[in-house]
Amino acid sequence: MLPRFLRCYNQGMLVERIKTKLTELSIELPIPTPPVGSYVPWKRSGNTIWVSGMVPMSEGKLRCTGLVDSEVSVEDAQECAKLCAINALAWLNVATDGFEGVSGVLRLNGFIASALGFTDQPKVLNGASDFLVGVFGEAGKHTRNAVGAAALPLNAPVIIDFVFEVE
Amino acid sequence: MLPRFLRCYNQGMLVERIKTKLTELSIELPIPTPPVGSYVPWKRSGNTIWVSGMVPMSEGKLRCTGLVDSEVSVEDAQECAKLCAINALAWLNVATDGFEGVSGVLRLNGFIASALGFTDQPKVLNGASDFLVGVFGEAGKHTRNAVGAAALPLNAPVIIDFVFEVE
Amino acid sequence: MLPRFLRCYNQGMLVERIKTKLTELSIELPIPTPPVGSYVPWKRSGNTIWVSGMVPMSEGKLRCTGLVDSEVSVEDAQECAKLCAINALAWLNVATDGFEGVSGVLRLNGFIASALGFTDQPKVLNGASDFLVGVFGEAGKHTRNAVGAAALPLNAPVIIDFVFEVE
Repeated sequence: MLPRFLRCYNQGMLVERIKTKLTELSIELPIPTPPVGSYVPWKRSGNTIWVSGMVPMSEGKLRCTGLVDSEVSVEDAQECAKLCAINALAWLNVATDGFEGVSGVLRLNGFIASALGFTDQPKVLNGASDFLVGVFGEAGKHTRNAVGAAALPLNAPVIIDFVFEVE
Repeated sequence: MLPRFLRCYNQGMLVERIKTKLTELSIELPIPTPPVGSYVPWKRSGNTIWVSGMVPMSEGKLRCTGLVDSEVSVEDAQECAKLCAINALAWLNVATDGFEGVSGVLRLNGFIASALGFTDQPKVLNGASDFLVGVFGEAGKHTRNAVGAAALPLNAPVIIDFVFEVE
Repeated sequence: MLPRFLRCYNQGMLVERIKTKLTELSIELPIPTPPVGSYVPWKRSGNTIWVSGMVPMSEGKLRCTGLVDSEVSVEDAQECAKLCAINALAWLNVATDGFEGVSGVLRLNGFIASALGFTDQPKVLNGASDFLVGVFGEAGKHTRNAVGAAALPLNAPVIIDFVFEVE
């Protein structure tokens, strides 16, 4: 492991990178609305921050609804996956007060509402994965699983949960 | 982080709360039967206890079977989700010898056997989430994901896996 | 917790056991091909190594494709699950340079592409669970969840993601 001052330096660079990249991509992180109920959007445990399943909500409504391949195109579903990742970053921003201490992305579990016979779930999830690596660089590379779901909350085409790493 | 004596005090309060609430709700935790085979119902890793997927088993049989919406009502499915959480607590009780050291709930992954077009998975999972927060209070608030499954083990309408936090 | 020299001794024994068992079973771990894209096959976080969803790929192609029960038999699906576990071990081997420091298996999340009405997902996942316990012994016992999926990447019958423990 790197000595502490180098880790701090690296972490500061990562915060800068995340903020710069979001600006370059003209992405303004939304101020997210906490879920109503008994669950929370994020929780820290040791050096990890776990984020609840995110749907492609934008300005209070879903970007698309329905099964991918029959009702939603792969391209639209990729945009939806990216939107799930943006919503996760919005919570990570809140959780860490501006990405302080964030050191990387550990895991994505992506569920894709799939029409019968649709098997391109990884392609859809790339919408989130590519976005996160674009923003974080190497530190954004993560493990993941991509699975076809029979149906998803609110008829969303994609739901993704996340685990981020913090120092 | 709180100083150690305050954490111990808080943790003792939480154990008391869990036991009192279970009594108030007239819930006697079952003595669970270990799964036959190569997997285990729980495993500790650092400050987390991971619990395997729990189905709504009660006194040796499933409370309901079938797809939610067509064969099982949302209300019954919520009761099933609660039963999954009770079974998870039964294992947590065994794992920690009476909730010693337990400090909170970190994650629920809930899979709901969903009839075509059913999109109220979060409502079903609330049966487990609300129960856990009722028992644990604030410490029970958790991250989660709710996903529709094509089919589940033993034709259960709900299966939930859990991650708990310990000191 | 055991004193450090005993833990080292135990860990050394486990490495020996894993290698011996793989030889006995005539399993030569493949040299795995890194995924193309923004995700990685494994990532270490503290004392855990997270492995991405593995499909039953062998020598560059899937061992079976299709839904379990209608297109793939339970027996073939069990072999596929075992192959997912072999592929995960291949990555764990790379990640730890020959299983150095590996101390156990923590979690399997198994998704089974399920024909309508198929409810024997746990039986399929046993193909992976039994194999891991055969190789690791007691340290291989893990928590898990088994869920039916509507469809899976590349039309695979099984996809499994893994969390391993390291010292």
